[in-house]
Amino acid sequence: MKKIYVVFALSAAATAFSQTKPLEKVEPAFWWKGMKNPELQILVYGKDIAHNEIELSDGIKVKNIQKVENPNYLFVTVNTNEINVPKFKINLKKGKKSIGSYTYELKERAPGSADRESFTSKDVMYLIMPDRFANGDEKNDSRPDLIEKADRSLPNGRHGGDLRGIINNLDYIQNLGATSVWLTPVNEDNEKVYSYHGYAQTDLYKIDGRYGTNEEYRELSQKLNQRNMKLVMDYVTNHWGVSHWIIKDLPSKDWIHWFDEGKNGFYRSNYKTTTQFDTNASEIDKKYALDGWFDTTMPDINQKNPLVLKYLTQNAIWWIEYAELGGLRVDTYPYNDKEAMASWAKAITDEYPKFNIVGETWLYTAGQISAWQKNSKTGEAANYNSNLPSVMDFMLFADMPKALKEKEGWDTGMIKLYNVFTSDFLYPDINNLLVFFENHDTERWNEIFNADPKAYKMALTMISTVRGIPQIYYGSEIGMKGDKKKGGDADIRRDFPGGWKSDSNNAFNPSSQTAQQKEFYQFSQKLLNWRKGKEVIHSGKTKNYVPQDGVFVYFRDNDKDKVMIIINNNDKDQTLDLKRFAESLGSVTKGKDIISEKEFSIEKNLTIPAKTPMVIELQN
Amino acid sequence: MKKIYVVFALSAAATAFSQTKPLEKVEPAFWWKGMKNPELQILVYGKDIAHNEIELSDGIKVKNIQKVENPNYLFVTVNTNEINVPKFKINLKKGKKSIGSYTYELKERAPGSADRESFTSKDVMYLIMPDRFANGDEKNDSRPDLIEKADRSLPNGRHGGDLRGIINNLDYIQNLGATSVWLTPVNEDNEKVYSYHGYAQTDLYKIDGRYGTNEEYRELSQKLNQRNMKLVMDYVTNHWGVSHWIIKDLPSKDWIHWFDEGKNGFYRSNYKTTTQFDTNASEIDKKYALDGWFDTTMPDINQKNPLVLKYLTQNAIWWIEYAELGGLRVDTYPYNDKEAMASWAKAITDEYPKFNIVGETWLYTAGQISAWQKNSKTGEAANYNSNLPSVMDFMLFADMPKALKEKEGWDTGMIKLYNVFTSDFLYPDINNLLVFFENHDTERWNEIFNADPKAYKMALTMISTVRGIPQIYYGSEIGMKGDKKKGGDADIRRDFPGGWKSDSNNAFNPSSQTAQQKEFYQFSQKLLNWRKGKEVIHSGKTKNYVPQDGVFVYFRDNDKDKVMIIINNNDKDQTLDLKRFAESLGSVTKGKDIISEKEFSIEKNLTIPAKTPMVIELQN
Repeated sequence: MKKIYVVFALSAAATAFSQTKPLEKVEPAFWWKGMKNPELQILVYGKDIAHNEIELSDGIKVKNIQKVENPNYLFVTVNTNEINVPKFKINLKKGKKSIGSYTYELKERAPGSADRESFTSKDVMYLIMPDRFANGDEKNDSRPDLIEKADRSLPNGRHGGDLRGIINNLDYIQNLGATSVWLTPVNEDNEKVYSYHGYAQTDLYKIDGRYGTNEEYRELSQKLNQRNMKLVMDYVTNHWGVSHWIIKDLPSKDWIHWFDEGKNGFYRSNYKTTTQFDTNASEIDKKYALDGWFDTTMPDINQKNPLVLKYLTQNAIWWIEYAELGGLRVDTYPYNDKEAMASWAKAITDEYPKFNIVGETWLYTAGQISAWQKNSKTGEAANYNSNLPSVMDFMLFADMPKALKEKEGWDTGMIKLYNVFTSDFLYPDINNLLVFFENHDTERWNEIFNADPKAYKMALTMISTVRGIPQIYYGSEIGMKGDKKKGGDADIRRDFPGGWKSDSNNAFNPSSQTAQQKEFYQFSQKLLNWRKGKEVIHSGKTKNYVPQDGVFVYFRDNDKDKVMIIINNNDKDQTLDLKRFAESLGSVTKGKDIISEKEFSIEKNLTIPAKTPMVIELQN
Repeated sequence: MKKIYVVFALSAAATAFSQTKPLEKVEPAFWWKGMKNPELQILVYGKDIAHNEIELSDGIKVKNIQKVENPNYLFVTVNTNEINVPKFKINLKKGKKSIGSYTYELKERAPGSADRESFTSKDVMYLIMPDRFANGDEKNDSRPDLIEKADRSLPNGRHGGDLRGIINNLDYIQNLGATSVWLTPVNEDNEKVYSYHGYAQTDLYKIDGRYGTNEEYRELSQKLNQRNMKLVMDYVTNHWGVSHWIIKDLPSKDWIHWFDEGKNGFYRSNYKTTTQFDTNASEIDKKYALDGWFDTTMPDINQKNPLVLKYLTQNAIWWIEYAELGGLRVDTYPYNDKEAMASWAKAITDEYPKFNIVGETWLYTAGQISAWQKNSKTGEAANYNSNLPSVMDFMLFADMPKALKEKEGWDTGMIKLYNVFTSDFLYPDINNLLVFFENHDTERWNEIFNADPKAYKMALTMISTVRGIPQIYYGSEIGMKGDKKKGGDADIRRDFPGGWKSDSNNAFNPSSQTAQQKEFYQFSQKLLNWRKGKEVIHSGKTKNYVPQDGVFVYFRDNDKDKVMIIINNNDKDQTLDLKRFAESLGSVTKGKDIISEKEFSIEKNLTIPAKTPMVIELQN
């Protein structure tokens, strides 16, 4: 233990250890009565705390006290079913002398908490990087307790966006047609520089002061819920920030993956997460993939350690319960220990049966991606069941720009899109895929297509009408560009115009949008709001027709409704002979394109303008 | 029926119908006692035969007589367990008058026939197009009963290669190190032109006279078996030739897929066989994929028709039993009705439990290919079990040239090869994959790499040492080129030099090979002969190491042996730090590269010359 401490003392900015009091921290700070799993493990932290005794008030029994290498920790397990008081005391005693005390509260759960609804294919998810969206509270831009101060002139610096900025713009998000909001991590990330992305968290129970407070985070969630919308937390199980207080004073060395050959334990991941299911993978490749650090400031967390796993599980449940969350997005999912994550996902979904969790399954084949979805046959082929309800369709993401850019050929162009869907049979729950054409880690779609509204409209139409949960990245809807190749991550995470008082252009207000922003926004608004009530899109069957001449046609249908979607990526107008679609058209006689709002009779032919999507509601 | 006949009379060269006698044909012509499935269905054909009575001699009972639309057919089912004579008569009677008779024989099976061995990963398969390999019998080059005559000057013509040519060169094939021989179809293909490929068969019970006789086919198989080698028949369930006698006088319209909108029933397949498992496929796409004709001369057979399926099943079993076959390769597998094919494969493997059948699963993702393998979880995801033991790794085939050609990058170059194997977990029987870098339908490897022996050596090393059954296409082993893009199929099916008396270069004889041919051949010979006894390659575990700097390293090992394979595709010599491979190397101290025949001690580093493969047998 000492050796580790010394190493970290050299590398870390603050030395938590020396400042530690007898009873410094208790995590989780409080809990709830009536959880399905009554067992609660309380981390109690303080200088040499393990040399003292723990006693609970009101005759409450401790089920287990676990000591670890580092005497500054105790892990106290209680059975909450056996506790009949709303508050009790954790007393720290040295012999008979009390040297500290903490009042622990078991709160009442909100009504219906266990049965809470979560995001589904009924939803459209809007992805926000909070630092780059809107600065609603300038007072919290820089804070004495947090190292990095706001400086909008630095592309990789803190720009001041915050939770208040998001709360202030809920009308904008709701009017756009989004129904759930995924924020990149907002927990404290108190690294010296490059902390705005939040993925190097330094406190898992505390919203970063530059974004706001825990209460404001809950306020955002509640305000979303009032609008029948949901807040989705970006959860990071794979790594914490190097300046996390636990990392700086590790309970035991095996809380993180420590590489003796690296500097301060660091060894970069090889990012080959296919090793997870690869029966041929060498142990060394697998070790570097899974145990290697995602980046220098991100020690790789060892989920195999039961204390770590319990910490991660309780922390996720704490946030769901406290902030009334409507879902989790989990970062770098395939980088984690997959057995531990299966337990983690199971514990959460046992507690909240309708709760949805989507893993960042950044892999490129349906065989690999589907293996990460709960109850998949592909997972079963590898003797694995992830218990993870939802996965991300990175195959579709990767092939969408190719489909629209490439010259049409036997295996190029729109056929690439079609091909993606031919492997849908591998997914046990095809509606629970996140579908997207960009996110905060990728080139901006509007950069690839030079802010061509036609390309955007086709892409948005596709993700809004195929199976799954469409995800939009903030700014797409007003045509924002961003070139990762040239400007790095900062360029794909530019500030949303209008989020700062000094911004000359305010795109949050439709009336002050530029003509170009209007074209993007109004299209998005129309399409996404239309999608809201369309069960036929949320859960209807899909029927695809092999693309011809750059035109991809597919139908969604259920008992009540039928929709024909046409994506004409051809440079020229195309006229379709409707005979080919007879099995889908059936007895329909008319249709209305919800985009152009034109109505027409369904007869022999249909002409679609060049580079245009159509979404046709069909009627008998 | 009449309408069909009229249409075919117009299109077909001969009018079979009018020449038909009262008892023209009986198929199968004979059968065997003691098959596991005692039920035998005999097709009896003759003019208006259905208007007559069938009576069997020796008091043998007919189990069922099935009539069809066309009165020229009867399908007579008997239970061979109930027949205690070696021969019996099928008598055709009109009232009490005998108008025809056929003596049906139930032969004795060869000892051990049911338990016959078949090709496995112990084998190397040598693929031959018989018309283009060697002309062993010039007398059969052209025949009065077969329309197309030999003309070597025509790229798409018949060149005269035959079974005798193969028999004459078995030493060559065996010395090369091949242990099984796959011939493209050799049944009669009596089309007017372009018949040499044999895929438009006109008689499923008769070897094409230009290749030889049924007896010669069996002789080839027996001579292979004497050498402990196997003959693999190329079986075509999906289509027959338009001039097949049954096609010209269809038992019923539904023996083939007939498109009223096409000319004489023809409608070309859209070749989108992913529709088989695609839950989103439209019926029309699926219909054109599966029921559309592979080509104008190839009516698409309807395996859903139980009589057709029984015909195909019995015919395959007849050839296995008659010609003592060691395996089947099945053409255009995913174009067939998949439920019918599952029954077909089951019937054959029920009869011969060790028998291997490899389907031409020309698809590009492991998710799709594996779904065609027996007992796969991916098949199960689509509620399907193919019963097909072996599939072809077209994913590896597609990525091999890219891996060797592309500049090394994050997702380009040798990583492409590695990526293929990361999905091996999807296959239930990973050793039963056919692995290859070319076949009779693809660009020649030596064309892509301009007959560079280095590229060939790397490719052959890979397919010979990874999991599965290596397949070599005739001529590869002497550096033959062939450009499908320029010269079409004919160019990738050039005559093997030395197969014709007039050939100035005879590559069958090692002493008369050119220097270039020698380099290719001797390398192949050494590697493939080495592979023969190497259980560690046939069924050992694989351990892959992520390629670095264009070097792909993998190990095969079992309880007894350990082999390290290194493919250095880098333009420069590469020195490996062996520390990385410690988990595989274990306590080995020395190795021998079976290619260079150099021995060396395994210590710190190992240097591999540029563009070179090494196959190192390791020893403690």
